[in-house]
Amino acid sequence: MAEPRISSIDGKLAEEFAVPSHVDEVKEKMAAFARYHAEAGRKVVLITSGGTKVPLESRTVRFLDNFSSGRRGASSAEYFIDSGYAVIFLHRHRSLFPYTRMFLTINMLDALQFRGGEDTSEVVVNQQVLPNIAKVLKRYDEVKDERLLLPIEFSTLSEYLHLLKAAAQALSTLGSKAMFYLAAAVSDFYIPASEMPEHKIQSSDGPLQLSMKMVPKILSPLVKDWAPQAFVISFKLETDSAILIAKARRALDTYRHQAVVANVLDSRRGYVVVVTRDTQAELILTEEDVKNEVEIEERIVSNLTAAHKAFITQQVG
Amino acid sequence: MAEPRISSIDGKLAEEFAVPSHVDEVKEKMAAFARYHAEAGRKVVLITSGGTKVPLESRTVRFLDNFSSGRRGASSAEYFIDSGYAVIFLHRHRSLFPYTRMFLTINMLDALQFRGGEDTSEVVVNQQVLPNIAKVLKRYDEVKDERLLLPIEFSTLSEYLHLLKAAAQALSTLGSKAMFYLAAAVSDFYIPASEMPEHKIQSSDGPLQLSMKMVPKILSPLVKDWAPQAFVISFKLETDSAILIAKARRALDTYRHQAVVANVLDSRRGYVVVVTRDTQAELILTEEDVKNEVEIEERIVSNLTAAHKAFITQQVG
Repeated sequence: MAEPRISSIDGKLAEEFAVPSHVDEVKEKMAAFARYHAEAGRKVVLITSGGTKVPLESRTVRFLDNFSSGRRGASSAEYFIDSGYAVIFLHRHRSLFPYTRMFLTINMLDALQFRGGEDTSEVVVNQQVLPNIAKVLKRYDEVKDERLLLPIEFSTLSEYLHLLKAAAQALSTLGSKAMFYLAAAVSDFYIPASEMPEHKIQSSDGPLQLSMKMVPKILSPLVKDWAPQAFVISFKLETDSAILIAKARRALDTYRHQAVVANVLDSRRGYVVVVTRDTQAELILTEEDVKNEVEIEERIVSNLTAAHKAFITQQVG
Repeated sequence: MAEPRISSIDGKLAEEFAVPSHVDEVKEKMAAFARYHAEAGRKVVLITSGGTKVPLESRTVRFLDNFSSGRRGASSAEYFIDSGYAVIFLHRHRSLFPYTRMFLTINMLDALQFRGGEDTSEVVVNQQVLPNIAKVLKRYDEVKDERLLLPIEFSTLSEYLHLLKAAAQALSTLGSKAMFYLAAAVSDFYIPASEMPEHKIQSSDGPLQLSMKMVPKILSPLVKDWAPQAFVISFKLETDSAILIAKARRALDTYRHQAVVANVLDSRRGYVVVVTRDTQAELILTEEDVKNEVEIEERIVSNLTAAHKAFITQQVG
C-alpha cells in the first residue's frame, strides 16, 4: 500500500540529492552496531547534530548553513550513554563532539606544557587550565572500550538525508528499542542539482537572486516507512515563542511521531517544552541549577528515556 | 579631495552593517601591538582568514557562508612569523588557528592518555598520535612570549568589515612597513539590516526567494583612504581557471594595490599565481615538495616578503 506522497519523497531523495559514495558502507557499520548492542540488551539512539550545508554552486564556494554549534546533540549523547543507551552520533563535520565541550573555549596549545617546564620530551595537560580533563578522559576511554558511541559525519544536506535514511533502515531490526533524536539543524530550503550553476557565481553579474526549493519532509517516510516501530523525537527551534507550541503540535499531527522538543533560540540553554500528543512538559533550569552546572540536556534525556521505556512496554503489551 | 564613490562606501558601512560593540577596544589593542613592534623594528602583517557569515534573519537561524577552513591564513601566519613579521590574525571564530593544524584531523581525547596507563593523576600527550607536538608547542610558546601573534575574531560579514577598517587605521602609523594579506573568503552578497526579517523564515510560507545586494568593495577605501602607504595583497579564488588571471588583473587595475594571489579551488593547495602590475609568478609544488611536506604558503610568503622589502626600499628612496 504505497502512499504516493511518501514514494515521491523517496524518489526526490534519489533524484535531487547526490547519494554519498560511502552510504552502503556506513549503513552496514550502523547495522552491525545495532546488532551488537541488541544482543547485549541495550537500546540504541540515533542522534543527529549540527547544521547542514546547502551548496549554491556545484563546485562549492558558497553555501547556506543553519546555526548550530552541535552542543545540544553532543551533550545529549553523553546523558544517553549514562542512561544505558548505545549512541549513533550523526553529526556535522567539526561540530561539537561528545566529551569535548571543555576544548571549545580554549586553544589546546594553551592547555599543554612541558613536564617540569624544562624537560621537552614529555608534554602534559595543565590541569589548572582543564580541571576536568582526567575525569572526562576516563569516561571517554570507557565509552570507547565498551563501543557505546558510533560517530558518523555529514557536511551537506544531501549527505544528511541519505545517511539518516540509511540509519533508519539499519536500526529497523531493533523495533521499538530504537530511538531517533533528531536535534540537527536541517535546512528547509535547497537548490536542486539540476538548477545549480557549476562555477562560482560572479559578483560582477550584479545582485544575487536566489530561488530555493523546499526540502522534502524526511520525517514523513522515516516514521511511516523506514522505522515505523521506533520512538521518534523531532526538534522545533523558533525565534518567536508565540508560535512555538502550535508549530510543535502541528508537526505531531502531521507526522504522527512520539514527541517534539520545542525551544526558542534565545532561551534554548535553559528552557524547552517536550510536547507529546497528550502531554506538554516544561523543562526549566533554575538559577540554582545553573550555579551547579546542571545542563538542560540532562532533563530532556531523563524525560525521554522514561517515555521511551513506557513506549516499549506498551508495544510489547 | 574626497571621492564620492569612497565616501559612499564608508557611509554604507556605517548604515547597513552593524558596528560591533568592541570595535574601539580592538582598534586600540591593534594600535598598541603595531607601536610595540614598530619600536622593535619589526614589520607587521594583518592576515584575514576564514569565511564570513551573512545572516538571513536578524535573530539568526540561517546564514550564507563562504567555504574556507582557514588553512591558508593559519599556515601563512606561521611563515610570516618565521620571516620576522609580527602578525595580527583577523580570523573567523573557530576557523583554523596558527600552530594547531595537527589537531584538525583527530579528536584530542584520542591523543591523550594517563601517565603510565594506571596513574590517573597526570594526563600526557601520546606522541605516537601527535608526533610533532613537542616541536610545535615549543614554537607556539616562543611566539606567545615574544608577543608576535595578536588573534582577533569575527563571525559575521559586518564584524569583518568594521574590524578590517579598524585594523587599517590602527596600522596606518607603520606606513609602508604594514602588509595586508587578505586571505579571508568574504561574501560578495548580503541582506541589508533594513530588509532582513526579524524572525526565522517559515518554511510553511513556501519556496524561498532571496534577493541579496552586493557587498561594497572594501579594498577601494582600504587602499585609497585607510592605509594608503601599506603593501596590500588580495586573494582571488575561482573555480574556473579560464577567467582567473584576467580577474586578478582587473582587480589590480581597479584598486591599484600591490598584488593578487590568484588560485583555483581544486588546485589551491599546490598551485597559485602571484600577479602584480608588471609580473606574474607561478608558484607550484612538485611531487617531491609534497613528499617533503612543503606547503605552498611557504612559497607565497617568501615571494611576498621579498616584494614587500623592495616596496619599502622604493618608498624610502
